[in-house]
Amino acid sequence: MKLLQEQKCFGGRQIRYQHDSQSLNCSMQFSVFLPPQAQLGPVPALYWLSGLTCTDENFSTKAGAQRVAAELGLALIIPDTSPRGEGVPDDDNGAYDLGLGAGFYVNATEAPWRRHYRMYDYVLSELPALVEAELPLDGRRAISGHSMGGHGALVLALRHPERFVSVSAFAPISNPSDCPWGRKAFTAYLGEDKAAWAQYDASLLLREKGCPLPMLVDQGEADSFLAEQLRPEALQTAAEESGAELILRLQPGYDHSYYFISSFIEEHLRFHARYLCR
Amino acid sequence: MKLLQEQKCFGGRQIRYQHDSQSLNCSMQFSVFLPPQAQLGPVPALYWLSGLTCTDENFSTKAGAQRVAAELGLALIIPDTSPRGEGVPDDDNGAYDLGLGAGFYVNATEAPWRRHYRMYDYVLSELPALVEAELPLDGRRAISGHSMGGHGALVLALRHPERFVSVSAFAPISNPSDCPWGRKAFTAYLGEDKAAWAQYDASLLLREKGCPLPMLVDQGEADSFLAEQLRPEALQTAAEESGAELILRLQPGYDHSYYFISSFIEEHLRFHARYLCR
Repeated sequence: MKLLQEQKCFGGRQIRYQHDSQSLNCSMQFSVFLPPQAQLGPVPALYWLSGLTCTDENFSTKAGAQRVAAELGLALIIPDTSPRGEGVPDDDNGAYDLGLGAGFYVNATEAPWRRHYRMYDYVLSELPALVEAELPLDGRRAISGHSMGGHGALVLALRHPERFVSVSAFAPISNPSDCPWGRKAFTAYLGEDKAAWAQYDASLLLREKGCPLPMLVDQGEADSFLAEQLRPEALQTAAEESGAELILRLQPGYDHSYYFISSFIEEHLRFHARYLCR
Repeated sequence: MKLLQEQKCFGGRQIRYQHDSQSLNCSMQFSVFLPPQAQLGPVPALYWLSGLTCTDENFSTKAGAQRVAAELGLALIIPDTSPRGEGVPDDDNGAYDLGLGAGFYVNATEAPWRRHYRMYDYVLSELPALVEAELPLDGRRAISGHSMGGHGALVLALRHPERFVSVSAFAPISNPSDCPWGRKAFTAYLGEDKAAWAQYDASLLLREKGCPLPMLVDQGEADSFLAEQLRPEALQTAAEESGAELILRLQPGYDHSYYFISSFIEEHLRFHARYLCR
């Protein structure tokens, strides 16, 4: 784990690391914010999964999360959104919603993706093991994300609730088996078998398994992807059917951008801190 | 004034406009944040001048200023850093510190710059007249900026204290007549006459005229441009010689980036609000 850059921010440390990923078979970069409290001892961590086209830098520079993380004593762990580098396949047409920047937090089973596109394992296991070994983290984890990353956060938490204390999402792709982004990505990465897709579909998982974790979702009502791609009503229905406690908030006038995320990130951090810091 | 984009942010409106500038002889874009209070009546405005290579978007997306502006009821007016578009000259070598993105908030007198590079007039007069005619602004103004924009904010406020209630800066180019960035830009835009340069040098202006306005400057001590380009000690000396009240704060560990700005922007907004909102 090589330190690429470190910058002071709200009394803490905003750091960018590089490492060779075993899960992804490539060199990866990720960002970390360590709050001032990490100088005194291990702190809990919020994992943030970003959306299509993002790297670790979008959330780091645009969300304004460090201020509240510094107050609450939370680390932020911010991975990239796909494997990267020479030899990592991309969509033949350079589409923004497949390949580089669009890993969808799955373990791909299809060629040419399966050698590198294993973001599920990377975020679930490899990255936490790495940062918890190298940084002052106490092993308590929460997870959140935006759009494709909201999908990833929900799926990881629903399948491994023992790994996290709470989960939240901004404008998640709630039912990827049944929207254009999800169908395209899942067909490429996972093939045609819908049973494989279901393991990466938050609405199907929630309906089937319920969710023992506190779960908060914010969705902007002026989000241009709302009806076709995001479909939070599927998540809501699944929560009702399984009896899970989902806090789903529709925010009038907000779109899909970081202006939306920055407006509500404080409430998400305080939500997670209630479970992370007790 | 044409609305290009509008996004809800902290209950207010983050808006990008385009207009034909008479000062600059080109089409310009700028950003505005209108707090929720602007729906009820006119509000005061903080003008933000950005640094080298920036557009109106850097501050809008990275500083995290909207949260506090929404709380305090302040509009943010965020111009670009130079004229733009076809026909606007750039540095022959595409240098980042001359030409496009590097207007230095002067009225150029030299060829080929003098037709378009009149950012001083643009920010001092044309832009305020435009936005105060078109938007719910009450005409009270404060001004702030970063690096090249900190230089611009200080110079505008020192030469026209009747136009502003307060001025602040992050890591300003404090004495451009005597640093590489300033000498290069002033030679190109203003020629060899040092008397012309002095009208755009905050330290020389402050020594000569003093400053009747509240004045706050933050400077990161880990800023790699500190010793060679920024030279806040010149500003401090000028304040002492003229008896002006300069609050100059050296912030240990902080660099020149938006991580530094975001860490202290709240304090700057609250500083300006004390004078803007009384």
